Amino acid sequence: MKITKAVITAAGRKQRTLPLQTLIDRDGIEKSVLSVLIEEVTAAGVDEICLVIHPGDERAYAQVAGHHAGRLHFVPQPEPLGHGHAVYCARNFTAGDSFLHLVGDHLYVSGTNQTCAQALVAVAEAAACTVSAVQATRESLLPYYGAIGARRMAGHHELYDVDAVVEKPTPTEAEQRLIVPGLRAGHYLCFFGMHVLTPVVVDILGNQIERGGAARSGYTLSAALAELPAREQYLALELTGSRYDVGVKYGLLMAQMALALAGRDREEVLARLVELLAQRELGRPQP
Amino acid sequence: MKITKAVITAAGRKQRTLPLQTLIDRDGIEKSVLSVLIEEVTAAGVDEICLVIHPGDERAYAQVAGHHAGRLHFVPQPEPLGHGHAVYCARNFTAGDSFLHLVGDHLYVSGTNQTCAQALVAVAEAAACTVSAVQATRESLLPYYGAIGARRMAGHHELYDVDAVVEKPTPTEAEQRLIVPGLRAGHYLCFFGMHVLTPVVVDILGNQIERGGAARSGYTLSAALAELPAREQYLALELTGSRYDVGVKYGLLMAQMALALAGRDREEVLARLVELLAQRELGRPQP
Repeated sequence: MKITKAVITAAGRKQRTLPLQTLIDRDGIEKSVLSVLIEEVTAAGVDEICLVIHPGDERAYAQVAGHHAGRLHFVPQPEPLGHGHAVYCARNFTAGDSFLHLVGDHLYVSGTNQTCAQALVAVAEAAACTVSAVQATRESLLPYYGAIGARRMAGHHELYDVDAVVEKPTPTEAEQRLIVPGLRAGHYLCFFGMHVLTPVVVDILGNQIERGGAARSGYTLSAALAELPAREQYLALELTGSRYDVGVKYGLLMAQMALALAGRDREEVLARLVELLAQRELGRPQP
Repeated sequence: MKITKAVITAAGRKQRTLPLQTLIDRDGIEKSVLSVLIEEVTAAGVDEICLVIHPGDERAYAQVAGHHAGRLHFVPQPEPLGHGHAVYCARNFTAGDSFLHLVGDHLYVSGTNQTCAQALVAVAEAAACTVSAVQATRESLLPYYGAIGARRMAGHHELYDVDAVVEKPTPTEAEQRLIVPGLRAGHYLCFFGMHVLTPVVVDILGNQIERGGAARSGYTLSAALAELPAREQYLALELTGSRYDVGVKYGLLMAQMALALAGRDREEVLARLVELLAQRELGRPQP
């Protein structure tokens, strides 16, 4: 299995302007959030990228994509029917192929030389099945994520066989269905916002949308992935990188700071930060 | 003299996308850089705002202006002929009135309860002449700013009578023409990016543009202001706030950090910053 397509969803009400924001990457180069995401997926071997967007946002996105604009296919999501529905909107683009999927309001900072998408795609290509990137996450953060129940695969420290998926579980649900042997107490494996999905996932999404009766948050991807273990093998890869949800308050600020502190401008940014803190504490801003 | 109009210039090549960036203000509210600037000028009593922009940017700006969009007048600057030329493009809007002028790529964080624009406008209305906001600036930063030569006015600690203006002076020029008695050694009064301008300044700009022969950086505002002391009184107000040039590398990051540390979310942002630094130092990012 070779992954050459990616689907990035960015149609949500609060997601729409995020990919247009400018930041500076680890190499000290100023670019849009969209360009950072595009480079994450192209570094993983992807040639063609489908952006699922709010109708009318095409031009603004194409403008900030720079020289990557030619790789982009735009698919509008006409109504805000949820994350799972947004992925399903790209079905003519994915056309029966497995694909990498990222959400447009997250940034990923890898803890290794491999990018997060590279690590995920390598595992998915070898295993030839759906693989979700996950991260051990404190119980207090469960209200923000989808979480999985899984067993660690023998001989693979970071790889799990998934048997349950619950979107934003309560602590009780999590305790009953999502305990993963070997994790620290009070921790669960939560989605990292990055998956490789097979055509079977798109099938399940299609069936769920046809049946109707979406949850209050619309058709979630978690609901489709919850049906997947009954249909085919479904793995999860635990990543050591960090994801930054740039859609939450101060999310972009912290993502930018994390990129700067992980990159080549680390010393300069630290120095300016210390200077800024010193100014504030002295109460006498200097020019 | 009552100031009810403002001109914000944002047509420069590197300035164009800056007002569209999102940040969080001191009250913890997420808004565009443009909205922050608009609120700075409306808090100073301005009703009508002219944005001098690159042709075609109207729609994007109107979208991020939110409920202020109705106050905006757009004037395109068809060619990149400099900052002074951009101000001159707004002459039909200013129409013989004095006006507040801000550059679209700076953010201002006041050191007092009064905003920077409020302090400047109050002085200009009382003195009924052109007033430039200035700040004591280290000699090493002279290559980035316009600077003035001036004498402190008797009985007014922060107010100066301007007799010379030089755009980006060399240290030698500064030493010969711009020494201001009473400042710390090695410091000069540099522009803060905020002025109240009288119609005479627009006249001078018109004459200079008609004569032709712009500098390499186009028609500067400094060149026009340099002719002003020979025509009418010209004052400078030394402000204790900080200006952040969001157009330079990491400028937006530092401006956002300064706003957050000066505002109501100070404790939360400091805590997250310390957490981020601790993660990086331990080399093991946590969820």
